[in-house]
Amino acid sequence: MPGGRDIVITGSVALDNIRTPYGEARDVLGGSATYSSFAASIFSTVRIISVVGSDFPECHLKKFEKKNIDISGLKISPGRTFRWTGLYEADMNEAKTLSVCPENLKDGSMEIPVHYRNASFLFLANTDPDVQTEILGKIRVAGPVLLDTMNLWIRKKPESLRKLLGKVSILLINETEARLFTGKINLVSAAKEILSMGPETVVIKKGEDGAILVTREDIFTVPAYPMEEVKDPTGAGDSFAGGFTGYLASRRRKDASSLRKAAVTATAVASFAVEEFSTGRLETIGREDIEERISKIKKMMRF
Amino acid sequence: MPGGRDIVITGSVALDNIRTPYGEARDVLGGSATYSSFAASIFSTVRIISVVGSDFPECHLKKFEKKNIDISGLKISPGRTFRWTGLYEADMNEAKTLSVCPENLKDGSMEIPVHYRNASFLFLANTDPDVQTEILGKIRVAGPVLLDTMNLWIRKKPESLRKLLGKVSILLINETEARLFTGKINLVSAAKEILSMGPETVVIKKGEDGAILVTREDIFTVPAYPMEEVKDPTGAGDSFAGGFTGYLASRRRKDASSLRKAAVTATAVASFAVEEFSTGRLETIGREDIEERISKIKKMMRF
Repeated sequence: MPGGRDIVITGSVALDNIRTPYGEARDVLGGSATYSSFAASIFSTVRIISVVGSDFPECHLKKFEKKNIDISGLKISPGRTFRWTGLYEADMNEAKTLSVCPENLKDGSMEIPVHYRNASFLFLANTDPDVQTEILGKIRVAGPVLLDTMNLWIRKKPESLRKLLGKVSILLINETEARLFTGKINLVSAAKEILSMGPETVVIKKGEDGAILVTREDIFTVPAYPMEEVKDPTGAGDSFAGGFTGYLASRRRKDASSLRKAAVTATAVASFAVEEFSTGRLETIGREDIEERISKIKKMMRF
Repeated sequence: MPGGRDIVITGSVALDNIRTPYGEARDVLGGSATYSSFAASIFSTVRIISVVGSDFPECHLKKFEKKNIDISGLKISPGRTFRWTGLYEADMNEAKTLSVCPENLKDGSMEIPVHYRNASFLFLANTDPDVQTEILGKIRVAGPVLLDTMNLWIRKKPESLRKLLGKVSILLINETEARLFTGKINLVSAAKEILSMGPETVVIKKGEDGAILVTREDIFTVPAYPMEEVKDPTGAGDSFAGGFTGYLASRRRKDASSLRKAAVTATAVASFAVEEFSTGRLETIGREDIEERISKIKKMMRF
């Protein structure tokens, strides 16, 4: 087990149907809590809170166990698992959502095991902000609380999100969402607007254009790892966020230098995530693979 | 005069009418040869080849002289100067061209002074590729030939451009144009496709997302300098290209390390160019301003 502190992650565990120019995958493992916990578990101890239906395949549960992820907070409730069907056309930066089965990760159906109630880190991966708020209220977190969200919640529940933002220290968000949420096209202005709502740090994920990390004192930029073949971009942002959280927890600090290294680590993790469909690549990579890619990124940025 | 070798730059010298969310400017100095020569002159000796009409204001000519740019190859011919009218809306990454007065930079009207005929560097800034080819044929260039172009020429004269590419060593192009020209959405693939047409180096300019520099052996990425206030993005790409060429000429080499430093220098120059309308900022900055911004970029990339 990696030497980091323990992280609780909540978000969705789903079954995805994905079509990209490289092929198709049906009923594969997906969801924000899945990708982020797989990524975070490379660096730290991870426990997840989520819910799936009784149709959720046993073989997928085994994948969490193989990554040493604590799934005692993953409730198997009657009914069907959350399903997302998405299509990527030639421009792999943008998924077209073909269908979504209604999110069943409702607070009423969630159970938080006793040993989850004191956590070092909490990552609220993308899901309903009301659920995120509920979970946050039930866990005593010693370290930072990290948050991710998506355009759906920015449009449907902006007020819940705004309130929640006052209670978290790090927001991870993609560039389209940052613009949508703040109404500012300029990303530096958008980041500053978000900082004024509460968080100490905002990380704006720009897909193949990398990421920027903004605090009140500091701006850090990291390019994406340049890839010629992206097989399946699903979960890239969640893997980034999970890698970020996992690395940060392993450092046991959140000073400027740790935050920067976390963003680079997250970039490396995300670059692996898109190499195969679903969690294929995240299932097999280890810390040394990440380190190797980080040195390539470092070399790519040196002048 | 800076200590670099001499560069000949050809392209347009124009009068622009620009509207951005920050204001409006009428009949201001513009054109690809203008921006790139102003930028290059910070580092090297620059001579330009272009043509303007008899309406071209004397005060604009003086600006070239102030930058020590040799304008003996700038022909003043009867008729009107090339005019571009552009509008930037909230998204400052994209100009809307409202009108263009027909390009009058025709080979027939060009005169190349004798002392231009042996140059160390040649930069074919954006203009008609047939004109670029003609100029290239008339100058003996000891060092590298650099080329820039735009979507208009990619659409209108792809064959001329393709032939010309076989004769240049460095192409500078923006991301939309690189995709349009190669038919490849993935930028690494687009860059490799371009390298297969002849150049040793391709620099893809991504505006606020920075730039990537690709050779057969190397990939280098540089983020843009994060700016909250972009007053006028006109000429950012030309300034980048001019800064790149000027810096490279001052290094007298084009090894991997010089190319990387040239890309960072170009990024710094472009970040100044957009701070004021027209050439306002480029007229006043010096090498020490660039160096200061480069160290900020370096700090922003350090981890």
